Amino acid sequence: MMKIYRYPEQKTWPDLVKRPVLKREEISELITQIFETVEKDGDKALIEFNKKFDKAATLEILVSEAEVENAENEVSEDLKKAIRQAEENISKFHAAQITETEKIESVKGVICWRENRAVEKVGIYIPGGTAPLFSTVLMLAVPANLAGCKEIILCTPPDSNGNINPAILFTAKLCGITKIFKTGGAQAIAAMTLGTESIPKVYKIFGPGNQFVVAAKEYAQRFGVAIDMPAGPSEVLVIADSKAVPEFCAADLLSQAEHGSDSQVVFITTDLEIFEKTIEEVEEQIKKLPRNEMAQQALNHSLFMVTQSIEEALEFSNLYAPEHLILALEDFEQYIPMISNAGSVFLGNYSCESAGDYASGTNHTLPTNAYAKNYSGVSLDSFVKKITFQHLSKEGLKNIGKTIELMAEAEGLIAHKNAVSIRLK
Amino acid sequence: MMKIYRYPEQKTWPDLVKRPVLKREEISELITQIFETVEKDGDKALIEFNKKFDKAATLEILVSEAEVENAENEVSEDLKKAIRQAEENISKFHAAQITETEKIESVKGVICWRENRAVEKVGIYIPGGTAPLFSTVLMLAVPANLAGCKEIILCTPPDSNGNINPAILFTAKLCGITKIFKTGGAQAIAAMTLGTESIPKVYKIFGPGNQFVVAAKEYAQRFGVAIDMPAGPSEVLVIADSKAVPEFCAADLLSQAEHGSDSQVVFITTDLEIFEKTIEEVEEQIKKLPRNEMAQQALNHSLFMVTQSIEEALEFSNLYAPEHLILALEDFEQYIPMISNAGSVFLGNYSCESAGDYASGTNHTLPTNAYAKNYSGVSLDSFVKKITFQHLSKEGLKNIGKTIELMAEAEGLIAHKNAVSIRLK
Repeated sequence: MMKIYRYPEQKTWPDLVKRPVLKREEISELITQIFETVEKDGDKALIEFNKKFDKAATLEILVSEAEVENAENEVSEDLKKAIRQAEENISKFHAAQITETEKIESVKGVICWRENRAVEKVGIYIPGGTAPLFSTVLMLAVPANLAGCKEIILCTPPDSNGNINPAILFTAKLCGITKIFKTGGAQAIAAMTLGTESIPKVYKIFGPGNQFVVAAKEYAQRFGVAIDMPAGPSEVLVIADSKAVPEFCAADLLSQAEHGSDSQVVFITTDLEIFEKTIEEVEEQIKKLPRNEMAQQALNHSLFMVTQSIEEALEFSNLYAPEHLILALEDFEQYIPMISNAGSVFLGNYSCESAGDYASGTNHTLPTNAYAKNYSGVSLDSFVKKITFQHLSKEGLKNIGKTIELMAEAEGLIAHKNAVSIRLK
Repeated sequence: MMKIYRYPEQKTWPDLVKRPVLKREEISELITQIFETVEKDGDKALIEFNKKFDKAATLEILVSEAEVENAENEVSEDLKKAIRQAEENISKFHAAQITETEKIESVKGVICWRENRAVEKVGIYIPGGTAPLFSTVLMLAVPANLAGCKEIILCTPPDSNGNINPAILFTAKLCGITKIFKTGGAQAIAAMTLGTESIPKVYKIFGPGNQFVVAAKEYAQRFGVAIDMPAGPSEVLVIADSKAVPEFCAADLLSQAEHGSDSQVVFITTDLEIFEKTIEEVEEQIKKLPRNEMAQQALNHSLFMVTQSIEEALEFSNLYAPEHLILALEDFEQYIPMISNAGSVFLGNYSCESAGDYASGTNHTLPTNAYAKNYSGVSLDSFVKKITFQHLSKEGLKNIGKTIELMAEAEGLIAHKNAVSIRLK
């Protein structure tokens, strides 16, 4: 079932780290059509799409106050308590990312600094389907709120009865989301990009989704909207030494595999016994999973590797640039500096990926598809712009005036030079 | 010549803030072809393109050591000194952006933090043409170097003799750029995206350029490369009160206008006398500019507005979201909190935009085209990824285990739950 490589040569690595190629071109015409329809017909188009794609009769797109109130009664007290604890931890971790303004006097009389300003209007997309991802509501709305975004809206598709999962509504309210709309897929992205009678246009769109949502987010950028990051299937790479626990490693690998048939699962160890035992454990544990079939498909293109050393495993990992990296290593501390490309790193035998997925405080919206080489995961920074400010006194301008004049002249920009000369003459 | 609006009604604002629509579709086929040619023929293609587009015979793409050494002799001592002072100030401002790692214990035994890792390979594009933008080399290479990027390469087109402007070479060397290549336009972007025999593939591409470069950077993202930010023509918005100096305001407006015929220039004041005098000054000063014709074209679509109050002017500015905002106001301090969308802000009568363009220390690579609503300018952050780390002790997992289990179960992700249960049983 899984692909097994014992001591693969480095020259084969570039092939091993390749992700499946996504075919987006095919659906681009459909996306364009959906954007056009939403632009032309607004809310009416969204109601039609709900009927067509979600088999849902919805008279109103906006979720009512009553619906939100009601949801609170439908979520169990235990789950509410769990969501609140997660919210608290996520708040704590993201609040620590708020930076102070530090003024720098680069030269006497020249003072420069940066100030944070929230992206004023943000849109969060939460997929429908089998799993109601209220945890993603936490991961996006908590930092948006901390950043001070004025308008935080949420779009998610209704079920066939026209309802939204109560845990999503409860979490949205807890996190200060201002408006929730019943619309999903590419049409939800189009609505947040273009605006409709009820849905306000936003400046930045966040959240996961299927291939239509991903293509729509990409397309939305043509209209000046920003997005959280490019998307791809979810991934984990586990590196284990001889002290790792095969049951734990297998459970982590499977928690990734159950996400979807396109999930990427990589296991690397230096220990042949751990290698064999982990594979056995995977085969054992998978039997009992409700999402067994999906996990099995994911495993069919998973990698199980043995390397000579932990250093070599990390070198492979840096080339792969995994979304999640688990170091099931006794002396993980010494390997941290070697990590150059990863979305989020889990250290030791008790730091399972699902801790970060739900409740430890870190964000679970992370770069996939090797984007960990050039993108960070979502953080407070994703919801703010950093604006630079500067104040020059007359003395300050005198101190750097000559430099500006010389450089502007050498670049052939005489009006740039004049702006200094006219002030100093 | 310029468009003049006295007390325009707020309902007309959305029309007034509109930027020219860029027609990118037309050249997309050409861009695709260039990428295909570079992928197929590598360096040979680049040499051919140099002949075709830059009328330059180049045997080698890589700038030699000797060429770099030679450049140092060709730059005047005064200019070298100026570049060094600018480099020092830019370093100082960007070095202060390096963040410390702060560990957060969200719950006892659950420790989370972020660490910075440089984007390992970055490419800088510097346009050729009339103005040799060595200042942009500083703005991109200084933070890249501070961030710790391992490979910092630079592409810029050769002149018709096959040479690169010596000020660009001098600055590149000063900033620790590892390799400089003679190639420009879309083909340079293709080369940094795909790699050739001499040009290494990079993970992120920075720098300004004409419509072909802009379109190529957009296209490059399909291959997994990141870019600094979406592009548009350069802009300034000046807000002046009765204490502003019309000569200074005019000089700032013209320093923007000389960038190109598509430059965006906006002037807003509450004072009718300042209004008239600034217009007169613009008409006077423009006569003496070498780039007079370009500046004139830019002014033809510029906005000159009178508003009732500074608050109203700022409201307009926030809707416009200018790349550069100059507050030529006596009591600028009190208006800072009202600024929500801008790239970089210049405060008072002596903070001319050209200070920030060259030497005050702030970055001049800034969001245009209203992207100041959702993007920051280039900073040290643009060259790093922030990776989250977490370590849970067994006790830590116990403390949040129930929460994770409940949430995972409610989302229907049983393998996620198992990863906790198996560790705690």
